[in-house]
Amino acid sequence: MKKIVNKVEDIVIEMCEGMVKAHPEQLSFNKKYKIITRKKLNTNKVTLISGGGSGHEPAHGGFVGKGMLDAAVCGDVFASPSTIQIYNAITKTESDKGTLLIIKNYSGDCMNFDGAAEMAEDDGIMVEKVYVNDDVAVKDSLYTIGRRGVAGTVLVHKIAGAAAAKGLNLLEVKNSAEKAIENVRSIGFAFTSCTVPAKGTPTFTIGDDEMEFGVGIHGEPGIAREKILSADELSEKMLERIIADLPYETGDDVALLVNGFGSTPLQELYLLNNSVSKILENKNIKIYKTFVGNYMTAIDMSGASISLMKLDKELKEMLDYPSDTPAFKI
Amino acid sequence: MKKIVNKVEDIVIEMCEGMVKAHPEQLSFNKKYKIITRKKLNTNKVTLISGGGSGHEPAHGGFVGKGMLDAAVCGDVFASPSTIQIYNAITKTESDKGTLLIIKNYSGDCMNFDGAAEMAEDDGIMVEKVYVNDDVAVKDSLYTIGRRGVAGTVLVHKIAGAAAAKGLNLLEVKNSAEKAIENVRSIGFAFTSCTVPAKGTPTFTIGDDEMEFGVGIHGEPGIAREKILSADELSEKMLERIIADLPYETGDDVALLVNGFGSTPLQELYLLNNSVSKILENKNIKIYKTFVGNYMTAIDMSGASISLMKLDKELKEMLDYPSDTPAFKI
Repeated sequence: MKKIVNKVEDIVIEMCEGMVKAHPEQLSFNKKYKIITRKKLNTNKVTLISGGGSGHEPAHGGFVGKGMLDAAVCGDVFASPSTIQIYNAITKTESDKGTLLIIKNYSGDCMNFDGAAEMAEDDGIMVEKVYVNDDVAVKDSLYTIGRRGVAGTVLVHKIAGAAAAKGLNLLEVKNSAEKAIENVRSIGFAFTSCTVPAKGTPTFTIGDDEMEFGVGIHGEPGIAREKILSADELSEKMLERIIADLPYETGDDVALLVNGFGSTPLQELYLLNNSVSKILENKNIKIYKTFVGNYMTAIDMSGASISLMKLDKELKEMLDYPSDTPAFKI
Repeated sequence: MKKIVNKVEDIVIEMCEGMVKAHPEQLSFNKKYKIITRKKLNTNKVTLISGGGSGHEPAHGGFVGKGMLDAAVCGDVFASPSTIQIYNAITKTESDKGTLLIIKNYSGDCMNFDGAAEMAEDDGIMVEKVYVNDDVAVKDSLYTIGRRGVAGTVLVHKIAGAAAAKGLNLLEVKNSAEKAIENVRSIGFAFTSCTVPAKGTPTFTIGDDEMEFGVGIHGEPGIAREKILSADELSEKMLERIIADLPYETGDDVALLVNGFGSTPLQELYLLNNSVSKILENKNIKIYKTFVGNYMTAIDMSGASISLMKLDKELKEMLDYPSDTPAFKI
């Protein structure tokens, strides 16, 4: 296993510390419970907490900051944070206006975030929850009943973050997050597997001319193992699934997120963006804003995903609302 | 070759178009000469132009924007742009205050940028040049007489960009860029080779337990082929070379850039930052600002580099000066 690493068991803590050291003016790290929080908490707004397994960097710690999350709870690589970790994130960031948990729809995450919410409610803290399930690839999966939450989660953080920063109340912020979830769809593909550090070998094997179409962000199987396609063909194939699902229609305004899975270079992501943008233009689906980069990775998997979020006036305003986090600045 | 690509010969143009489509409010693209420019040019400031071979994305187009570059000239992958391309970049972005070319020290780039500068001077345009040579790994290399220009170039863009944005004159902006160059040093390592698309196979082979220490950003050989080290050992080894070179001393303030070469995920870059930061703290070299991410890549090479820039009051002010480009926002 060729990785920049000291001891495998210290990866999450050292990685979190490295992220916080890179952004000391914005972030703090609670080492005991592996929680990255905003350095200065604002108790007059709804608190937003997300998180999940590590291995998706910059998610989720990279989205902690002004206009997005207040805390990210970091599990081990590809493992949900524990109920106790999440409970501590909630109590340590309590605000007068309550807390919204943004949860990617995986069984382990749902169970632990739900349990932590109950414990916090017993303490008298108002907690609401939303579940992101933007992946159109599979109905159920290895780790999920229902669709998986993938890169679209970042756009949900952005919208909910703006709603909270604007001073909306807990139910209003929850409604904004749910509106974002209702309007976002994603799909991805992988050219190679990721390597989970504790295992040290690739999660799956794949031929030199093959891709996993519809792959999950933990290297879970997708729709099919297929021959690799050109950038244009691949974009067409991905958009076909996404567009039909909502559906997105002629004249719609959308946000477009072209997300790398970790080891795909920007050269290829920008080229993919070119293909995707051309197809959307031809369909008269209007790109209001584009994001290209590594937002929700699968450790070192090679591949990418596309997410679209349909935007009305309200969602556009929230997307444009200022945010200043390590990995997302508008 | 597993890449997101249509035709290999179209990679640079499609990639540039994808970048410009992602940032339509900031960037324009001249397809004929492969020049990415600011959408709104300011003729009342010194124009800053950089560029070089493609394959270093987000460099250099990603640094075009407010407070940094005015144009990036894009050569083929790992090949200098031609004199005619650069000449056109100069004439199309001419300002009343002259043009500074920021050139990475490779023989091909130097020759073509120098030739273009001469042509533009014949047209009556004031042109000055600086050459970045921050790589402490090797004295001369495959493509260079003298040291190579690598990731530290991004910090030079930032400093020169601030000087130009502040309204300084051509010689003053050149002096700022040279001061930045004098104070920046870098070194890198690779775990794997990059694959140049036109070749389709890795540039070099390397054992499963080996790294190329001191590698260049085109996969050029470095100091030695060695067994891979832990993150802490690797950081110590890299910093030893960098610190001794300037030298950086106890009490110095520095900017730290932890730069990925393309396929190394953020998880590892943040972990590397943790190791590097700890060592600098122990040496009482004070980190004024940290940047972690993919800034100057080598297509899809796995590995990273560290750059330090020693900062005085003036350089700190310039580093903090607002910039808003696709890949660098302060």
